[in-house]
Amino acid sequence: MRRNPERRQALIDAAIEVLAKEGARGLTFRAVDAEAAVPPGTASNYFANRDDLFTQVGGRIYERLLPDEATIARSREGVQDETRYAELMHELVDRVSAFNSGYLALLELRLESTRRPELRAVLTKRIREDIDANVGHHAASGLPGDSTSVVLLYLALNWLIVERLTLPDIFTEQEVHELVDAAVRRSLNA
Amino acid sequence: MRRNPERRQALIDAAIEVLAKEGARGLTFRAVDAEAAVPPGTASNYFANRDDLFTQVGGRIYERLLPDEATIARSREGVQDETRYAELMHELVDRVSAFNSGYLALLELRLESTRRPELRAVLTKRIREDIDANVGHHAASGLPGDSTSVVLLYLALNWLIVERLTLPDIFTEQEVHELVDAAVRRSLNA
Repeated sequence: MRRNPERRQALIDAAIEVLAKEGARGLTFRAVDAEAAVPPGTASNYFANRDDLFTQVGGRIYERLLPDEATIARSREGVQDETRYAELMHELVDRVSAFNSGYLALLELRLESTRRPELRAVLTKRIREDIDANVGHHAASGLPGDSTSVVLLYLALNWLIVERLTLPDIFTEQEVHELVDAAVRRSLNA
Repeated sequence: MRRNPERRQALIDAAIEVLAKEGARGLTFRAVDAEAAVPPGTASNYFANRDDLFTQVGGRIYERLLPDEATIARSREGVQDETRYAELMHELVDRVSAFNSGYLALLELRLESTRRPELRAVLTKRIREDIDANVGHHAASGLPGDSTSVVLLYLALNWLIVERLTLPDIFTEQEVHELVDAAVRRSLNA
């Protein structure tokens, strides 16, 4: 197996674009080579099989969805109240929506995981860890609310992003904004 | 175009199963014929093209997701309070989750709609009408909460169902139950 880490990453990033554009069935080594503009046969030197490619794509999307250091540092500044919580959630929804292809690819992976037990195990572990990390960060942050608030926001905002990316005319931008505010405000009320 | 309505419906129902099992790319007339156990060439006599098949599938899934008359009648009985609201939402989550293939097919349609403007228009209209109808039913029901409660519940419960159907080990059945209760309780607090 080839080991150039930059090349591997470029291939995985290309695979994300293929998944978003063509769906899970369209994710072939050949399509990845074409998307990455590398010689035919390259991807097959980097991944043992399609299962391996699918699981590496899952990990990479999560890596790219994480906020950068500057964003994390900024999120810890200022008063940690309900207004601040809402600001952070607006930023989150915008950041995730901006990585359009990544989020659509993640939905494709979820659907594909109903057919691939190995992928399902990897995604389950990754997403459960992500939820637990969010609950942990929240507890340490001084923001209002409890662990249930965090999970309810996770649920509501995920579907709001699905709506925005797949059927963008269901809610106006103004409605999206108001729904994020309302989701924060009401999820905090125990 | 053939017009036997029962045959058409059986083909559309077969298409739902194909979508859930094989993904959007796997939804071909040939696969529908095989799934419906009808002679090759049958589906192509009932649908003008794949776009037509996709949009008819979308309508049919919504039709099958609606509660039956008995369920609707029962939902109007008794005290219309927060406890009743939670019961209704538990029933809703269970009813939608039970039509596993329909819900997965709907997610496939949403992803496919990012590639098919005609399908996107049909789904947008159908889903917006569905949200508005839910808001209307809620207003007429005497249940607590406002239109924002209804939309927040729509968001949170949709993703909870996605989670349950695609990665069923993220939340235990007990956690799902408690999250539905919490989503109802908190979404009602304006």
